[in-house]
Amino acid sequence: MSESYAGKINRKLQKKRRIINAAAGREPADLVLKNASYVNVFSNEICQGDIAVAEGLIVGMGSYSGKTEDDCGGKIVLPGFLDAHIHLESSLVSPREFARAVLPHGTTTVVTDPHEIANVMGTDGIEFMLQATEGLPVDVRFMLPSCVPATPLDESGAALDYRAIDSFYDHPRVQGLAEMMNFVGIIAGDDQPVEKIVASQAHHKKIDGHAPDLQGNDLNAYIAAGVYSDHECHDLQDAIAKLERGQFIMIRDGTAARNLEALAPLLCDKYAERCMFCTDDKHPNDLLEKGHIDYIVKKAIALGADPITAVKVACHNAARYFLLNNRGAIAPGYLGDFVIIDNFQDFNIRRVYKKGVLMAENGVPREIPEPKIEPYLLERAYDTFHLQTLAPEDFADHRPRGIIGMVPGEITTVDAGYSDRIDVEYDVLKIAVVERHKNTRHIGVGYLQGYGLKSGAVATSISHDSHNIIVVGCTDADCAAAANHVAELGGGIVVWDGGVKAEVPLPIAGIMSDRPLLEVNEALEAAKATAHALGVSQDIDPFMTLSFMALPVIPSLRITTRGVFDVTSQNYI
Amino acid sequence: MSESYAGKINRKLQKKRRIINAAAGREPADLVLKNASYVNVFSNEICQGDIAVAEGLIVGMGSYSGKTEDDCGGKIVLPGFLDAHIHLESSLVSPREFARAVLPHGTTTVVTDPHEIANVMGTDGIEFMLQATEGLPVDVRFMLPSCVPATPLDESGAALDYRAIDSFYDHPRVQGLAEMMNFVGIIAGDDQPVEKIVASQAHHKKIDGHAPDLQGNDLNAYIAAGVYSDHECHDLQDAIAKLERGQFIMIRDGTAARNLEALAPLLCDKYAERCMFCTDDKHPNDLLEKGHIDYIVKKAIALGADPITAVKVACHNAARYFLLNNRGAIAPGYLGDFVIIDNFQDFNIRRVYKKGVLMAENGVPREIPEPKIEPYLLERAYDTFHLQTLAPEDFADHRPRGIIGMVPGEITTVDAGYSDRIDVEYDVLKIAVVERHKNTRHIGVGYLQGYGLKSGAVATSISHDSHNIIVVGCTDADCAAAANHVAELGGGIVVWDGGVKAEVPLPIAGIMSDRPLLEVNEALEAAKATAHALGVSQDIDPFMTLSFMALPVIPSLRITTRGVFDVTSQNYI
Repeated sequence: MSESYAGKINRKLQKKRRIINAAAGREPADLVLKNASYVNVFSNEICQGDIAVAEGLIVGMGSYSGKTEDDCGGKIVLPGFLDAHIHLESSLVSPREFARAVLPHGTTTVVTDPHEIANVMGTDGIEFMLQATEGLPVDVRFMLPSCVPATPLDESGAALDYRAIDSFYDHPRVQGLAEMMNFVGIIAGDDQPVEKIVASQAHHKKIDGHAPDLQGNDLNAYIAAGVYSDHECHDLQDAIAKLERGQFIMIRDGTAARNLEALAPLLCDKYAERCMFCTDDKHPNDLLEKGHIDYIVKKAIALGADPITAVKVACHNAARYFLLNNRGAIAPGYLGDFVIIDNFQDFNIRRVYKKGVLMAENGVPREIPEPKIEPYLLERAYDTFHLQTLAPEDFADHRPRGIIGMVPGEITTVDAGYSDRIDVEYDVLKIAVVERHKNTRHIGVGYLQGYGLKSGAVATSISHDSHNIIVVGCTDADCAAAANHVAELGGGIVVWDGGVKAEVPLPIAGIMSDRPLLEVNEALEAAKATAHALGVSQDIDPFMTLSFMALPVIPSLRITTRGVFDVTSQNYI
Repeated sequence: MSESYAGKINRKLQKKRRIINAAAGREPADLVLKNASYVNVFSNEICQGDIAVAEGLIVGMGSYSGKTEDDCGGKIVLPGFLDAHIHLESSLVSPREFARAVLPHGTTTVVTDPHEIANVMGTDGIEFMLQATEGLPVDVRFMLPSCVPATPLDESGAALDYRAIDSFYDHPRVQGLAEMMNFVGIIAGDDQPVEKIVASQAHHKKIDGHAPDLQGNDLNAYIAAGVYSDHECHDLQDAIAKLERGQFIMIRDGTAARNLEALAPLLCDKYAERCMFCTDDKHPNDLLEKGHIDYIVKKAIALGADPITAVKVACHNAARYFLLNNRGAIAPGYLGDFVIIDNFQDFNIRRVYKKGVLMAENGVPREIPEPKIEPYLLERAYDTFHLQTLAPEDFADHRPRGIIGMVPGEITTVDAGYSDRIDVEYDVLKIAVVERHKNTRHIGVGYLQGYGLKSGAVATSISHDSHNIIVVGCTDADCAAAANHVAELGGGIVVWDGGVKAEVPLPIAGIMSDRPLLEVNEALEAAKATAHALGVSQDIDPFMTLSFMALPVIPSLRITTRGVFDVTSQNYI
């Protein structure tokens, strides 16, 4: 809509007048939550009264009547929850399906870092996610990916410097620069990462951190550079050291990392003001079985946190950090985002409102219209595999290569020596990463021990952070066939044994499905079972574990498109 | 300086690298406060360590060495203080002299509403104050005046609608829209005041409130309209009602209104996060005798507040409210603004640093260069009296007029009947307001009882909020002579008795001196003594009381340029 400034002010004036009239009681509100007991994050207590909403905003608490009334007697009304840091792609579904999944859990705002899709599609990936989240009833805010590619060793779909992402800061849903993982580069004063911080600051935007265990003057340097938060704290001392130096602490409890238990002591008067909750990654079954931020709040209360403090951390604190000052509280002028629960102990979510509209009831979300995405972006997102059909010979290698030794229950690995052949009996399998973005024909080959596969191959295009195809197989032919099928699907997870035994198509950039979460989860769980049936150890997630095998920052050995890499010695071996 | 975006990023990169290097300890810091005990507003405790500063920013706490070192052993280091709401003009001195006065008291940031000068000079007044504060070592931030003129009855120098002030939102030191005093207009949904709020929100700026005793759904309406704070709370219940609804509470303790004692219970865990300190108005002798925000902090501690809480309210909370996120804490990345005190009980301020530069020591400020002001603005500020020379006949009036009855110790007045002549014996004096902005020759005449003047006249161009000339005299000739001399001075305070007996020239817009605070205070105190010697009652401030006589919002009778006005009945009498 083309609109003059005077026209805009006049339009907003009309809307504001309607809000004022409803607040003053001269006109009925659009919605009134009658007889509500609600969490007041300002006075840190439970207050009583009707909550009136007009034009999507809370206009007042007190005594009100409305066109729609919802009797909340006996229940507790909370502000909508906010996930302070997530990669939406990790849910394996489109943003719309993600929204349908988290709304019944009370999430009304998430701050996403489209790091995964940006590694595949570059700035087109960011734009795709912006368009795919436009108008969703979960307000999706963005932090711009700061590390694409994740490392200089990566062969990703794009490399983004500060200039590449700069124009996105003008987008009204972009809050800043996402987790600056390259803390080594910041502390060294390297141009590229420091420029990104400087540019985000020039736009008056936030910069999130990612610096596990950083301390002392190096931590000072990282924070002084302009990094305002951290979500990697896994022990209390680390968190307090960062908090004391001014960083906001995102207490993370997601699928891949769960830090709430260690950090629960932060949820006290002394520290809570500087804390918020995030999940970082939420996989389909985790979302379905446990929930989202509601699960963290419930768990925090079970761990002894004051319920009002836990709720405040789940909504208000993150909102203030991200300068989303119209949410995270039940007060005049705030968004009509509500979570109605039965009580703090059971924490069953009865209804969820977004901007005063009922969006979920007893776990069932309302239908959400599909956001409109520009055709060129859709085409681009569904066409991200650029490689030639693979033959068994592409995986053949007669030189000895390193054996990556898996550690049950961990994503770290050990150096398990060398091999020049597959040996299924001794659980020495072939592992390879196939570059798939730019048809470079780069294929890195090595060996994997501890996976347990007895027959066939497993391949996936979810492989952090470049999302090339990673494949583990019992023969070179199995490797080729499984990887080829991933490419044929336009991305996904494939279990192959003489044919497709299971598959999870992920055609959006090779990392997300366009199907509902429930359906994706079923396919994924079926594929896991199939992989286990083919011998993959029960204590290993067959796909998630593989997805980290190509991330050359986790010790000790990793597989890259250029071969096996020793993270400890920083050498190819 | 004309600079490309790429050039700007590169310049900031170089500066950031220097900060990182100093933080990491690779280069010496510019300044190190050695062996400091400092207030940590994040962990709410006293921490120990060296505090290092480079490029004006704190780069780290720990163990550091610097080009300049200041041993802070045995002392306590606090972040610089912030006044959340003041009208700088009320100090009667120029911003530079104000800065010299408050720096020794630890104030490093103030948020001013140039309401007074804007009533005289309109947007030129705002621009004058912006230029007059540029580069001062007290960072002066602005809230744009929302109510010029203060009432429709006022004859001020300008009338500012939202369009008039709109371009100022782009100025980097403008934080939003100042106290929206017209809460009646907001609740009624009137175009002009609501447009101003809407426009400030369109610029993503703050809106401060001013709504004494407003409650219930009307308070909801005022807050829902977009008013984020209040500094008019004079009792605890009023403050909590506003705080619970989401407003930030500015606890005011200044010259004209002192609310700290009533509101001190807010300085507790439950509420303090939503509170800050302000003075609103600080007159010269009050600044000199008591101090500024330091006085409030000291008094709060004496009233039983936790010292760390009081300090946090004095710096951090206001900074966060105004989105001045680089100050109000001692942590990496924050401004090197420090107040070094001996201890919390005595609260003697030893040294004050602004951006790492020592600006005051043991009460003595460093010299401050005069900010450069465009000549046209200087000329405009020194030429704000546009009226013809007054004759005694201009004050003559043979019709009966209302008698304004003064109430000792109050700024309210009572209706004291009618008179058609001066009667010094019965303390019935002439009072008049002379329009002085636009040569309209409007002179409102009435009578005043209770002032006590026995001979001559007192005149001042400080008369809220339009700053016309207000004069009280024993004869029409005295009135004319005193008012004429105010105009000759280009503004000021005059005590006349057959000639000038005392004067305080205020040539900047007729409301500020260009002399140092000490000198202005001496002249002012001498003038007060002279006025008292001429009979003005000892329990009346001869000038401040007069300055409120023309404000047609305080009951019951006021004098305006159009005659005596009854605020209660809203009629001229």
